[in-house]
Formats: sequence, structure tokens, C-alpha cells
Amino acid sequence: MALVVQKFGGSSVASMERMRRVAQLVAAERERSGRVVVVVSAMGDTTDELISLAEETGPLLDDREMDALLSTGEQQSAALLAMTLHNLGVPAVSLTGWQAGIRTEAAFSRARIRRIDPERIERELDAGRVVVVAGFQGVTAGQDITTLGRGGSDTTAVALAAVLKADECDIYTDVDGVYTADPRMVKSARKLSHISYDEMLELASLGAIVLQPRSVEFAKLYGVRVQVRSSFTREAGTLVLEVGEMEQERIVTGVAYDLNVAKVALFDVPDRPGIASAIFKSLAAESINVDMIIQSANRDERNDISFTIARNDLSRAVPVVERVGRELGVSGLAFGEDVAKVSIVGAGMQSNPGVAAAMFEALASQGINIQMISTSEIRVSCVIDAASVEKAVNALHRTFKLDQPDD
Amino acid sequence: MALVVQKFGGSSVASMERMRRVAQLVAAERERSGRVVVVVSAMGDTTDELISLAEETGPLLDDREMDALLSTGEQQSAALLAMTLHNLGVPAVSLTGWQAGIRTEAAFSRARIRRIDPERIERELDAGRVVVVAGFQGVTAGQDITTLGRGGSDTTAVALAAVLKADECDIYTDVDGVYTADPRMVKSARKLSHISYDEMLELASLGAIVLQPRSVEFAKLYGVRVQVRSSFTREAGTLVLEVGEMEQERIVTGVAYDLNVAKVALFDVPDRPGIASAIFKSLAAESINVDMIIQSANRDERNDISFTIARNDLSRAVPVVERVGRELGVSGLAFGEDVAKVSIVGAGMQSNPGVAAAMFEALASQGINIQMISTSEIRVSCVIDAASVEKAVNALHRTFKLDQPDD
Repeated sequence: MALVVQKFGGSSVASMERMRRVAQLVAAERERSGRVVVVVSAMGDTTDELISLAEETGPLLDDREMDALLSTGEQQSAALLAMTLHNLGVPAVSLTGWQAGIRTEAAFSRARIRRIDPERIERELDAGRVVVVAGFQGVTAGQDITTLGRGGSDTTAVALAAVLKADECDIYTDVDGVYTADPRMVKSARKLSHISYDEMLELASLGAIVLQPRSVEFAKLYGVRVQVRSSFTREAGTLVLEVGEMEQERIVTGVAYDLNVAKVALFDVPDRPGIASAIFKSLAAESINVDMIIQSANRDERNDISFTIARNDLSRAVPVVERVGRELGVSGLAFGEDVAKVSIVGAGMQSNPGVAAAMFEALASQGINIQMISTSEIRVSCVIDAASVEKAVNALHRTFKLDQPDD
Repeated sequence: MALVVQKFGGSSVASMERMRRVAQLVAAERERSGRVVVVVSAMGDTTDELISLAEETGPLLDDREMDALLSTGEQQSAALLAMTLHNLGVPAVSLTGWQAGIRTEAAFSRARIRRIDPERIERELDAGRVVVVAGFQGVTAGQDITTLGRGGSDTTAVALAAVLKADECDIYTDVDGVYTADPRMVKSARKLSHISYDEMLELASLGAIVLQPRSVEFAKLYGVRVQVRSSFTREAGTLVLEVGEMEQERIVTGVAYDLNVAKVALFDVPDRPGIASAIFKSLAAESINVDMIIQSANRDERNDISFTIARNDLSRAVPVVERVGRELGVSGLAFGEDVAKVSIVGAGMQSNPGVAAAMFEALASQGINIQMISTSEIRVSCVIDAASVEKAVNALHRTFKLDQPDD
């Protein structure tokens, strides 16, 4: 008998009507595969509503209590789905994170799964029941409830699939798969039949989050074949797998963009060892992540240093940069919110030189100025003017022929 | 350092504004006593809202899943109260039933507490924290979540007070104490400064539920002094304690009434052994509780049998009684919803004969006909016409001088 793990996100269970639709999908999978473990997120806006209540308690938001509070959303939807299954005549049992044996480290609000004790789940499966697990949560060795961070239900599903050696791990979301570009921006964007773990990770780091990155890392580590699909259609979605399992390697798989970018520049920074580290250590101390960095040699042993951060970190970054700028005696500072990042991602880039050059040329042909560049083995990203993003993404989609089926 | 257990019901934490008021009461108690354990119910209508969602899943309502669902309400309010306390500068930690070590039998929706392992609570108290426990819930040996039935948070509080050997157990409700009669019906009703466990139990069985009966039994068994008080005033409430601890024994402590009563009569039932048991076994099989029973000898070896049940059980009782009536060959059946029960309760009755007679006389003087009578050692109840309840309760309150302070 096959074992399938299915995960349903918050929008898939946003109403009791949708919950019934999910229960039918689960029942059909049980007919087909025999053994089914379902992971659910909280219903619709439940998590946001609980956060609002918590914010009413005052400015101090204790992480431990927040986790105890938020974990109830998934516990509710798991119990309700089990009840809905009963009413379809399908034996089912709901389990919280601690009941499902999901042990995590004691890092509230962003705990990592350390270990899963699958005895209870296996016992329930052996008894012929569908096991509905509350996603996004676990328990520490000290018996405190933890959550795995936003989107953590994906990680719950993939981790369970790994431990239970599931044949399939289907992640149902409100999109029906991974696209060559954002379909709202590029009319000819195509759904990919498959994508590699590494490409998926790059897309996530670029702001196109379909799966939580940690769940993709988990899937890659344990070789879990994940399918991203929609609970609203019966069509196949996008399979995430090892690059070697793909029939044909594409040079460029997709184009991504990220508007959550801000640029910071410090002018005439003294060229002494340790200066850059002084700047970036101060930002790290405030938990502000720096993405791209450019240092350009200047006259008189002075440099200009520019870098990008997430736009929603900018208000916290400004006072830090102003302080450091004063201490270093820079000649000026600049903060820009009118920038964005466009990227191309593709596992085949590694063995195909000239891809970056083709990207720069495509942007230049549209009169788009490249302000910063960064690359990984399978990605090239450029910071450009925010107003040019749509034009840039469409040009790159055309240039790399992403509108043409390749599989 | 004294240890106080405080319990706050759903209406005391119905909004975040009220939650702050509760947090202030807790903070003040901590200033005074040092060690505080708080038990909370779910916020306002949360439980009813969750029940509505569950009912949308279909007609089958699995008790295990219902408990998993409903227990989240208390978990949420416990976490939110702990956060509110943090924001007042009071160290606090929330615990679910299973985290608080509350072990129950595996009877979903109405589990009894078997044992409490207080290690975690004691460790948190020793660390100087207020411990906020989610009421109404526990966990079975098999690691399933259970609930203790409606009002179960009272039982959680009293059981914790017993195990932790608390100096006080304050139950905050939306009434400010126990009254000699329902103040909405009797203008001169007085708040009692104290009442015995047994009197409190009788009042609960009569429909005047201020404390869940099981919590009173627990309090009596372990000698926990319980105070019923309001979270909206600073006044003392009503102390529930052993009769021997009271300064002065009252003959009659209060007058209660119950409108949730229906009368059932079977006419000309054959007078054979086992007949009554046939009727009442059939009702018990449908979980319908019978309260008072009257059997009156008739002619020709036939009897009339009348009994009362809860009015909201009547629709389920009718088909059972009709079936049994047919089988026994009775001459007729009658179902009456126009009845009510009035009762007087007082621990001093046992040593004061003539109390029942005084009650009957008081009702007769008002022209009220008594249809059925039942008594316990400390209670006399009469079934009367529902329309006469207000007149009866006021007459009894006057007759036993309950408007006059006695302590």
C-alpha cells in the first residue's frame, strides 16, 4: 500500500465549504493509495486574527506565548478536517504537533525540527485511519509548544514524508504550480512540469515563495519528491526533484522579481581594514540581512559602499547607518526605495557560459540601467529601477524563450 | 508565602479590555500573596463559535475531535492572559492541561480528573512566575486531549487548589456571589457571606448553577475553601466551606427554582414487579435523567406513575414513553411542560423538624397547588404550576426570613 502525505494551506481550508472539498480530495487519495497523512494550516485568516489579539495585549510579544497561541489555529483546522472526514465515512484522527511526535529545538517562533517519533502516526495508519496533523508546530524537550515560522506547515509535511518514507508529498496551495514567471506580470508565463530543489530554493530566496525554503532543503536532503498543486483543480502541478531526475536540463527555468528591496549608499568611506565589517556587524546586530554589496574604489583612499536590504527593514536600518556613517566620517549617505531585483534561475547555467551576458544585453536593449549585480551558480540577479520591473521581466522571459514548452 | 488559585470565567475574559482588568486583579493578588495560579476559560463566545463550526462538518460529532477543537479556546485565553501580564511587568507562563499535568480518564467531553502531576507548575511558581492554566481540559494516559464538560474550569481550579494545597481558591464569575434567591425574581434577595458545600451542591442540582457541581464535590472532598466573587467589583463574595466552619447554622439558606422541568404521566399501569424498572431503564438507555417519581395506587391492580425530567429532554422522551406505554398496555399518557420546581435548601433543616410543613403552608396560603414533592436531608422541593413560580419563590423567601441578615 502506498503512503501519501498531503498538505493543505490556509486558503484551501478557509471555509467549511472548502474544508469539505479538501476532505473529498483526501478521501479520493485514500481510495487510491490506502495510507494518507494530511497536514493542515490554520483556516484562512485565523493566524492573522490571533496576532491582532496578541498585539492588543501590549507592545511586548513573548515568543513562547505567541507560539502557544498561534498553534491553536492548526489544531482547530486539523480537528475540523477529521470531523469532516468522519462525516464522509472516512475514519480519521487529528494530532497536534506534540501528539504527532514532532520534536523541535527550543527556538520559539522559528523552531527547527530535530526529530520525529512516528509511533503514534504509524499506529493510527495501521488502524486504517487517515491521520490529520496540525502543521507548523512541534514541542521542545521541555514540553513547550513551538512553531516553525510562517509557511512551516510545508516543512511539517516534507519532514513527515521523509520520516514515514512516503511515496509522494503533495503540497496543495492557491497556485497550481511553479511558473516560468509571475503570470500576473507575464501573459505567456507557463507552468513548469518539474523544477530542481536548487532552482526552487533560489526562487524562494528571490521572493517568489511557493514553498517554504526550509521545506525544500529538507526535501533535497532526504530526497522527498514534492508536488506543488492546487486544491481547486485536478490537474498535475509542478514536481520538485533532484536535477538528475529531470529528463532534460534547462538553461534558464524561470524569471523572478522582488520589489521588497531598498538600496543604501555610504560615500567616501575611509579605506581601512575592518571598515566594511563595522558597517555590516552593526546591521547584523539589529537582525537586518544585507543582500548585495558593491564597493567602488574612489580617490584619496576613500571608497563608496552600496548595499541592498529588504525594504521593510529600511526604517530600522536608517539610524544604524547614520550612526556608523558619523563614526566613520563619510561624506554622505543615500537611501533608495525605488529599486527592485530581477533574476533568472536555471540549473543549466553552470555548464552554459554567456547566460549572464545575454541577460545584461536583454536589459540594455530595453534601456534599463543595471545598478548592481550578484550571481550564484544557478542564478543571476540585477538591481534596477523599480518602475522598469515589468518591462525587464517580460524581456527576459522572451529572451530565454520561456514561453516555449520544453518538456 | 501564601498560594492563591484564581479562576476567571468566559465573561471575565470576553474582550481584551476585560482581559487587562483580570491581569490587574492577578497582579494585585501576586503583590499580596506571592504565589498565584490562574485558571481561565475560553473568551466569551469562543466555545459556542467552535461548536458551530463543528456542526457545519455534518451530523456526526466525534467526541475526541470535539475535545481537541474546544480545548483550543482555553489555550488561547491562557496565552493571551500571560502576554497581558508580561505587558504589566508581571512574569507569567501559560500552560495547557497536558502541560499542567492534568491527567484524566479517557471519557471525551466529560472526563474526570484522575491525577495532577504538579511538578511543572511548582517549578514555574518557584521561578517567580504567575502560572496561567487553560481550564476545562486534561490529557489521557494515551496522550489524547480531553475536556471536563461545561463549567469544567471550576473543577480545574479546585483540583489545582487541592493538589497545590492553596490557601485560597477564588472563582470569579459574572455574579458577585451566591444569593438567598434569584435577585431578578426576589427584590430583597441577599448575598450570602458563606454557604456549605452540601447546600451549594443542592443548589446546583436545582438549576441554580454558580459552580460546577463536580468542583464543589472536589472542594468538599479535599477541604478547599472556595470563594465565589465577581471580577467587576472589589467586594468579598460568598465563601463555600464545611458546615462546621460556619459561625451559625441557618435553617434555610436559600430558595431556588428550576423552569427546566417537564412532567410525564402514565395512567393505569399494571401493578406487576419490574414495571417501573422497565420504564426507567428505557429512559436511562437514552441518557434521560428522571428526577421525581410518584406512584399512586389505583383500582384493579393498576397504578398511575408520574415523573419529572428536564424539559429539554422531553422531545427525546416522548417516543420512548409512547413505546413503553404501548407495551405495558396503559390507558393513557400525559406530557406537561407547564410545571416548575421550587426548593428550599438549608443545612440546618436536618435538626429542625417542621420546615417542610412550613413550606407547604406558605405555598397553600398563596393558593398554589403542590403536584409532587421530593426531599433530601437539607432540601425540600415541590413541583408546581409554572405560572406560580415567582409568587412561590417570594412567599418562601419571606416565610423563612431570608431578607434578614443572619451573619
